[in-house]
Amino acid sequence: MSGKYETRLAELGVTLPDAPAPAANYVPYVIVGDMVYVSGQISGDANGRINGKLGADFTVEQGKLAAKTCAISLIAQVKSACGGDLDRLVQVVKLGGFVNCTPDFLDHPQVINGASDFIGAVFGDAGKHARAAVGSSSLPLGVAVEIEGIFQIK
Amino acid sequence: MSGKYETRLAELGVTLPDAPAPAANYVPYVIVGDMVYVSGQISGDANGRINGKLGADFTVEQGKLAAKTCAISLIAQVKSACGGDLDRLVQVVKLGGFVNCTPDFLDHPQVINGASDFIGAVFGDAGKHARAAVGSSSLPLGVAVEIEGIFQIK
Amino acid sequence: MSGKYETRLAELGVTLPDAPAPAANYVPYVIVGDMVYVSGQISGDANGRINGKLGADFTVEQGKLAAKTCAISLIAQVKSACGGDLDRLVQVVKLGGFVNCTPDFLDHPQVINGASDFIGAVFGDAGKHARAAVGSSSLPLGVAVEIEGIFQIK
Repeated sequence: MSGKYETRLAELGVTLPDAPAPAANYVPYVIVGDMVYVSGQISGDANGRINGKLGADFTVEQGKLAAKTCAISLIAQVKSACGGDLDRLVQVVKLGGFVNCTPDFLDHPQVINGASDFIGAVFGDAGKHARAAVGSSSLPLGVAVEIEGIFQIK
Repeated sequence: MSGKYETRLAELGVTLPDAPAPAANYVPYVIVGDMVYVSGQISGDANGRINGKLGADFTVEQGKLAAKTCAISLIAQVKSACGGDLDRLVQVVKLGGFVNCTPDFLDHPQVINGASDFIGAVFGDAGKHARAAVGSSSLPLGVAVEIEGIFQIK
Repeated sequence: MSGKYETRLAELGVTLPDAPAPAANYVPYVIVGDMVYVSGQISGDANGRINGKLGADFTVEQGKLAAKTCAISLIAQVKSACGGDLDRLVQVVKLGGFVNCTPDFLDHPQVINGASDFIGAVFGDAGKHARAAVGSSSLPLGVAVEIEGIFQIK
């Protein structure tokens, strides 16, 4: 409860939600050795899903906030994978970010930075991750952002 | 030939095809340690490719069937990676599903469930996988679904 | 400097650039054990980014050249991950290729072959990789191709 990363999350004003249930017939994460593969987390929070299409009805700032909620859900899943002790996280290895956007949208990196910046703020060096950010013509249920991740734990 | 998973496949009425050849200049899978990285498998079967665009000329049910064929191809590749003995599969780790669809399509999870449900039916607990499902504005050769996967074997 | 793969690159007329800096708040690669996860590399070279949309203003041949620049950037990142000695590469494990294209585009495999062919020419058997190639309605900054990769090193 009072681990260093949970403390940092509290300082940042974030209370981790329960790890979100998958949207369909799969599991939220699989652990292989010291690696955790986390399913794609869709943008949303306690108030519901965050839907939108960048380049149409959604600004980059709104997209960044959506991406941050994906990061929070990823962290909640990793905490669950760590049996509740988030300090068992060794390294955020890789994020794969998908932005729901129009064909002429250009600012995918800024949008996914909403997740990367937050993960950096929480985990410091352990949060330095590889990343891909791409556009999707559509995402599940109309969400603005979906992010999957690979994490190393101990 | 008569392993538990092959028996289960037979019960489900599925005969594994030969592992499909890649569509271009790469290999169908790479083994690193006990992990198998399988290339994206495009929808299709003995009758040919399954082409379509969800939200336009293809229903969710058709999409689910297309996704199931991707799962069958993934399993055929894993069998090949296991030297023919599918019972060497330890865990389906991660699927990455891409749905060829229109910008307003919402039901990616249901489509990719066509693969996840089948893998669950075949492998039980060993089939419980992490997953991402996203929309693509187009896919190779016009196929409806493409799914890549990571598997642990022994 | 005079390793076998650097020699082969020189024979192919390619001088590796410095490993490109990330476009946003993440790192170009993360090493976990003997695996290197490289961030998505966007098409471009010393003359700048290579922008375009396949199926609209960009031919398949232009796309292949764009994909080759992504491969060169990936190799530059791997060399950096190897502390400058590219011969420490054991295996190119997996490429994930995203093609900026129109909804009716079909030739993603040929485009990403621009990367796969080059990697095969440089690394031979060690370059035989798994792959996924999909369409994106848009990519960061308007680039034509983005490719991420997983590599095994020693």
